[in-house]
Amino acid sequence: MKSNNSLTTYVQRVIDALVAQGVTRIVISPGSRSTPVALLLAHNAARYHLKLFVDVDERSAAFFALGMAKVSHQPVLLVCTSGTAAANYYPAVIEAQLTHQPLIVLTTDRPPELTNIGAPQAIDQDRLYGQYVKQFAQLPLPSADATTLDYVAFNVQRLVLASETTPLGPVHLNLPLRKPLMPDLEPVAGPPVVRKITKPVGDRQLSPTQLTQLVGQLSGRRGLFIAGPQETADDWSGLVQLAEAVGWPILADPLSGLRQTDSSLVISGYEQLFAPPITLAAAQPELVIRIGATPVSAHLAGWLKAFDGPVTLVDAAATLADHTLATTAVIRTTVATLVTQLTGRLAGAPAVYTQAWQTLEQVYRQQVKLAFQTDQLTEGQVAYTVATQVPSANVFVSNSMPIRDVDQFGIPQTHSLNWWCNRGANGIDGVVSSALGMAAVSDRANYLVIGDLAFFHDMNGLMMAQRHQLALTIIVINNNGGGIFSFLPQAAAESYFEPLFGTPQNLKVSAVAQLYEATYELVASTADLQAALQQSTTGLRLIEVRTDRNENVVAHRKLASALKAEMEAHLEN
Amino acid sequence: MKSNNSLTTYVQRVIDALVAQGVTRIVISPGSRSTPVALLLAHNAARYHLKLFVDVDERSAAFFALGMAKVSHQPVLLVCTSGTAAANYYPAVIEAQLTHQPLIVLTTDRPPELTNIGAPQAIDQDRLYGQYVKQFAQLPLPSADATTLDYVAFNVQRLVLASETTPLGPVHLNLPLRKPLMPDLEPVAGPPVVRKITKPVGDRQLSPTQLTQLVGQLSGRRGLFIAGPQETADDWSGLVQLAEAVGWPILADPLSGLRQTDSSLVISGYEQLFAPPITLAAAQPELVIRIGATPVSAHLAGWLKAFDGPVTLVDAAATLADHTLATTAVIRTTVATLVTQLTGRLAGAPAVYTQAWQTLEQVYRQQVKLAFQTDQLTEGQVAYTVATQVPSANVFVSNSMPIRDVDQFGIPQTHSLNWWCNRGANGIDGVVSSALGMAAVSDRANYLVIGDLAFFHDMNGLMMAQRHQLALTIIVINNNGGGIFSFLPQAAAESYFEPLFGTPQNLKVSAVAQLYEATYELVASTADLQAALQQSTTGLRLIEVRTDRNENVVAHRKLASALKAEMEAHLEN
Repeated sequence: MKSNNSLTTYVQRVIDALVAQGVTRIVISPGSRSTPVALLLAHNAARYHLKLFVDVDERSAAFFALGMAKVSHQPVLLVCTSGTAAANYYPAVIEAQLTHQPLIVLTTDRPPELTNIGAPQAIDQDRLYGQYVKQFAQLPLPSADATTLDYVAFNVQRLVLASETTPLGPVHLNLPLRKPLMPDLEPVAGPPVVRKITKPVGDRQLSPTQLTQLVGQLSGRRGLFIAGPQETADDWSGLVQLAEAVGWPILADPLSGLRQTDSSLVISGYEQLFAPPITLAAAQPELVIRIGATPVSAHLAGWLKAFDGPVTLVDAAATLADHTLATTAVIRTTVATLVTQLTGRLAGAPAVYTQAWQTLEQVYRQQVKLAFQTDQLTEGQVAYTVATQVPSANVFVSNSMPIRDVDQFGIPQTHSLNWWCNRGANGIDGVVSSALGMAAVSDRANYLVIGDLAFFHDMNGLMMAQRHQLALTIIVINNNGGGIFSFLPQAAAESYFEPLFGTPQNLKVSAVAQLYEATYELVASTADLQAALQQSTTGLRLIEVRTDRNENVVAHRKLASALKAEMEAHLEN
Repeated sequence: MKSNNSLTTYVQRVIDALVAQGVTRIVISPGSRSTPVALLLAHNAARYHLKLFVDVDERSAAFFALGMAKVSHQPVLLVCTSGTAAANYYPAVIEAQLTHQPLIVLTTDRPPELTNIGAPQAIDQDRLYGQYVKQFAQLPLPSADATTLDYVAFNVQRLVLASETTPLGPVHLNLPLRKPLMPDLEPVAGPPVVRKITKPVGDRQLSPTQLTQLVGQLSGRRGLFIAGPQETADDWSGLVQLAEAVGWPILADPLSGLRQTDSSLVISGYEQLFAPPITLAAAQPELVIRIGATPVSAHLAGWLKAFDGPVTLVDAAATLADHTLATTAVIRTTVATLVTQLTGRLAGAPAVYTQAWQTLEQVYRQQVKLAFQTDQLTEGQVAYTVATQVPSANVFVSNSMPIRDVDQFGIPQTHSLNWWCNRGANGIDGVVSSALGMAAVSDRANYLVIGDLAFFHDMNGLMMAQRHQLALTIIVINNNGGGIFSFLPQAAAESYFEPLFGTPQNLKVSAVAQLYEATYELVASTADLQAALQQSTTGLRLIEVRTDRNENVVAHRKLASALKAEMEAHLEN
């Protein structure tokens, strides 16, 4: 093997820098230009305890990495070859930026003399992801020059740190490589040459004056917490205790991670309650404190838009991403810090207010339980059954209808059940891969609830289950097409509806199972689904639930009206 | 249905403008925000003779559109909803720009008040494809205002014209739409209100002085034509006659469209011939004229790089995309124009030169034929068999190994056999969809030759065959992984090779056939493959050829050396 010292030294240094910053999970898509990076990563894998995943489809690879980053709260490295391979990462990169996930995208590239000159498999990779990465770095060509090596290592570390610094997000390193691409694969030994740069310290908190002022505004008032999706590692567990102490309800999005509790103040019935028109009577809050990202519930957003009291956003990044335009103040701390600062300082809300919310939620949960005491396996029933029957688990939920169903019928549970979803751009792309990425870092049982269109869209993602022996149980709600469109006005355009929106794929889930060597089961009743969920979960399992799009709309609307009516009846008392 | 006149009038005008410019093929991916566009396209379909295709996976949809544009030389419209749906188009958009194909990308978007504010399914779609589109237009919000309507129609027409103007390429229209999204679907009648803008006229040609000068440089010399991939509708058929008249060889890439001839001067054996070191002796040219894009052959590029005579690039766009850096002059006309201007004006090359090339090619073709007089079904044999056994047809060829095999063993044929390939970024993504796009506009039998990794990468693309009853026979060369890497130095890194490069997918092509309701056949010999290719082609057919990656490398290298030796033996005589 011809010696290729500069290349080896340089790429090794890039790897040392990544590892120094704690990057250990890596998703590689095979290619020629990325050869030295892939080989040296493999060569260092044992020494550095790297976990290498190989995914042929770069689109799936990036969503797989996103799933790992989302659940582990750790940066994940993506490596691909030059050309459109890198462009296939784009959807996941956008989702990572919108949901603040630390993806480290390392694209390899042709050297300068082969760019913009008609050379094969060369595209202009300069700022390929536009404004959708936090930072971009064009790395210099490999060199064993000490100054270059030190600069590159530090710059790589800087970008990893940027991806982990509020607001978190993806970064892009473009690495040009010249042939020969074969590195030396001599034994690597000795301590790493790159020193870790610890993450920036220094957290924002309220000054004593600011805190006194805030306490004055909040103490004894009818406050309402709204907890949207929790994207970061910030510890929100104290919020439930604070809410209990002051008697404030928390409208808790399933992605907030706060529905794992027996607290009567964790509210899940707001989507129905806030269906307009609504008068909250005794439950009317005076002020709102929002944490986390945009909640799933559309009616909650509508209610907030119309709310005329003060709305404070706890937003460490101060980006003010509030499409309800309701925000009147921003607290630029983490939730954990704010909770610590407020704990013990606030007088409680009037009991009548607290009780009104507790009653509403109690009624909601009872009615939901009652509604689903049936063996009929509707789409809502799937969400409810997963919420109540699945033990300690991570459950990924697809966009479109499943996340809406979980939002409404995934009522709080005392067991450790974490819901996950790609709620940045809310795409149906890459969902299978993200769920498998979750499974790859999970210490619990893993589930995915997904419709047939989203399942089809990222079917390639299933390959990773087989290749890396990942355990995931996928519940495919197969209504043979786009179920959500039946809720929209175009459902009235009957002659165009099926080909344009319904788009039946006639996908045989059993044939997919055969292709990917998954266990397959068709369940037709609630009891069947419950039984299937009780089974131990190893490997890839596909559970198919067949539903009818039209019946689903009728069932949803009927249940929603009934739930709202019940809650309103209690509000009036 | 609530009347929504402004929206309807406005979107109808956009459609009228597109149709006025000749856009009739449309690929829609279902979504909510694109509702009025999709519905009104369907509503106008009969009246305007539109061909609507619906593809759930936007990545596949864009490559399908690219395939249609490439083969039909007509602009094709893509329509999708807001969010990452649009980002899934990115790989095909990049490929379209590099291969100069007129994709009209119409992304629908949330209105301004829902962008960059945390609203769901909203990403910043402004210049989403960066420098990879020729033009971008942010359309105004729908309005029935006459000035706005006229402006929008003209602007849409302008962008379509831009996509069709040299250098051709993709354009991006971003259309923000506000709810309600349901258009009026009243009967549309009467003549279209938008007038067609005819394409810009006025072609470049050589002035009499320039022509006289050029004729002086070329006449009687030992000239060599190099014809790379033909991306446009420019008619190259006259070039073979001109070459015959002056006795100049044409090194004809399979994608040049020039290998459909019995001319002894259409040369296909150059990849082997130019394997270094090479002395051309009597076949040594004095000058080169290049047409078309970058040829597939790596050895041809290497030879050209070292050639020290004048190299003239016929390049209507004068982009000088020549990574061999050999170009010394540019003729800014079309090939058809140049051929017309030169015809009848040039004295021929010395006969010894012409005969040397004819002999070389004759030897090459004979030896190739001889080498493949075997029932052993190697990967090279597949290319040769398709070239010789398939009748009048369009054959799409995947990147990586298949196009290299076709380049070498797809020797010229007198029947009408057109080869197609995505040779912009040379990706293995989207190949199945591009081939089906070809099939959707083809007037002939349709084939795809593809390896198992590329087949897997765009397996979703197969859905279009079923949905739109497209006829395509796919020959899947299944060597269970990435065959090309066995040719590269990393093959020596045995302990890392299979997981990182070989990447066996263990894909059961028969199971894929079952999933997509395709006919499936496993062929094990040349005779079997010939028999399979003789069958009439309707619907989707999968023909699997199983090969071994290691044996393939050995067979290729052995054959290449033998072919080069034979040609060199004749050069020396």
